[in-house]
Amino acid sequence: IGIFDSGVGGLTVANAVVHSMPQESIIYFGDTAHLPYGDKSPATIRRYCEAIVSFLIEQGCKVIVMACNSASATATDFLQERFKGGPQIINVIDPLVEEVAKNDYSSVGVIATKATIGSKVYERELAKLSPKTTVKTLATPLLVPMIEEGFFKNDISHAIIENYICRPKFDDIEALMLCCTHYPLIKNEIKEILNRPVHVYDNGEAVARYVKSRLEQENLVNNSPKAPKHRFFVSDLTESFENTTRLFYGKEVSLQKRILLES
Amino acid sequence: IGIFDSGVGGLTVANAVVHSMPQESIIYFGDTAHLPYGDKSPATIRRYCEAIVSFLIEQGCKVIVMACNSASATATDFLQERFKGGPQIINVIDPLVEEVAKNDYSSVGVIATKATIGSKVYERELAKLSPKTTVKTLATPLLVPMIEEGFFKNDISHAIIENYICRPKFDDIEALMLCCTHYPLIKNEIKEILNRPVHVYDNGEAVARYVKSRLEQENLVNNSPKAPKHRFFVSDLTESFENTTRLFYGKEVSLQKRILLES
Repeated sequence: IGIFDSGVGGLTVANAVVHSMPQESIIYFGDTAHLPYGDKSPATIRRYCEAIVSFLIEQGCKVIVMACNSASATATDFLQERFKGGPQIINVIDPLVEEVAKNDYSSVGVIATKATIGSKVYERELAKLSPKTTVKTLATPLLVPMIEEGFFKNDISHAIIENYICRPKFDDIEALMLCCTHYPLIKNEIKEILNRPVHVYDNGEAVARYVKSRLEQENLVNNSPKAPKHRFFVSDLTESFENTTRLFYGKEVSLQKRILLES
Repeated sequence: IGIFDSGVGGLTVANAVVHSMPQESIIYFGDTAHLPYGDKSPATIRRYCEAIVSFLIEQGCKVIVMACNSASATATDFLQERFKGGPQIINVIDPLVEEVAKNDYSSVGVIATKATIGSKVYERELAKLSPKTTVKTLATPLLVPMIEEGFFKNDISHAIIENYICRPKFDDIEALMLCCTHYPLIKNEIKEILNRPVHVYDNGEAVARYVKSRLEQENLVNNSPKAPKHRFFVSDLTESFENTTRLFYGKEVSLQKRILLES
């Protein structure tokens, strides 16, 4: 299973995939030389993703997960067309939207970065599958730097999360979608602060369930008795990424540097 | 006086310039289509700055201020060489460093974005002018999104600022340099939280004093009885920029959109 992101945030998705399918080998690629994708043009994001998917196919991946909301919002159709006939390419948006849409909620909240909220992709996709659901979106730009600074379960994170999720517009939501791969790290804190029966969804768990069912349907589950291998590549390697990796993946991993494109 | 930045943060510099020299006309250019510069390559930043400086010269500016730390750190030499013989181009780093260096402090703190701290430009420039000063730097990546979210003088801003500036490494500093054009908006809050005799410097006031003395030395002060004009251009115009402008400039301004480069 190949998994990629612009940085190390997608490791929360890798973590969910490994927990859900412990017998599968994974290859993770973090395009840290080019992060964040949120600021780049669609053409540039597509070029970066194309190089990464080619690399993951060369490495023998049977399914590829785009663990990045910006890439998912701009490059899904392009990559599926470009690599037609190859391994299935799954984005991080569709599995989450499908899972939420099944419940026909009357009101759902979406929190994400400015780029993801600005793309309106979650509103658009939910409207297709669950047209009666009112979707209330909020850009929460402090959460990514807050998490990257290591601020969780302290006064700062509590005050920031409370300010965002306790706004009046979210008073009647039945579910809250965490539409950024960083947010699983504060999912429990969000639930505590909400302190009411709101179903909280994140990209990682939804995509892991989706990938598992696809592998089962297509008879691609790994039944080999050999221990699975987990490999992690980044396009730029700094000490800060090594530290953050531990935070996002939940344990120590060894990062290998691999440059796919010169610019 | 021409003033430019990648966004609206440089308006704190424009504000300081207008307060210091109320008789001068200013033209501000915020390259909002390309922000943030911090993530861009030096070649790209230079290309953007070249287009902006050409525009400001066409508009008749007698002096040009780079009100952006990222541009100042990467494009100063290039622009001064490229526009040799034209109006003087002043960056936002040198005036602040000169002012601080005059005091021969034994220990100085520097807070800024990750990109500015990573460039080590303040340590390098201070070492040249004040070699005995120990410079203690800290990247404070939460402050820009915090300010842009409008969080000042509340529990969130208090907790974040305290976490950054009350770290043990800053215990013995005699001065704190705010090396990001957003930070003047929280200067008073920083002083209150420090609550001890530490001199707090920012880019805006230092550059305004520097520009004033240059204009006086070169007999370029405006003595015309006509009222000065203040014009503001941006390369991308959104409602969010219009709101933020009020915040950074301290009063309502009318933004005009002007595209200088297609990409």
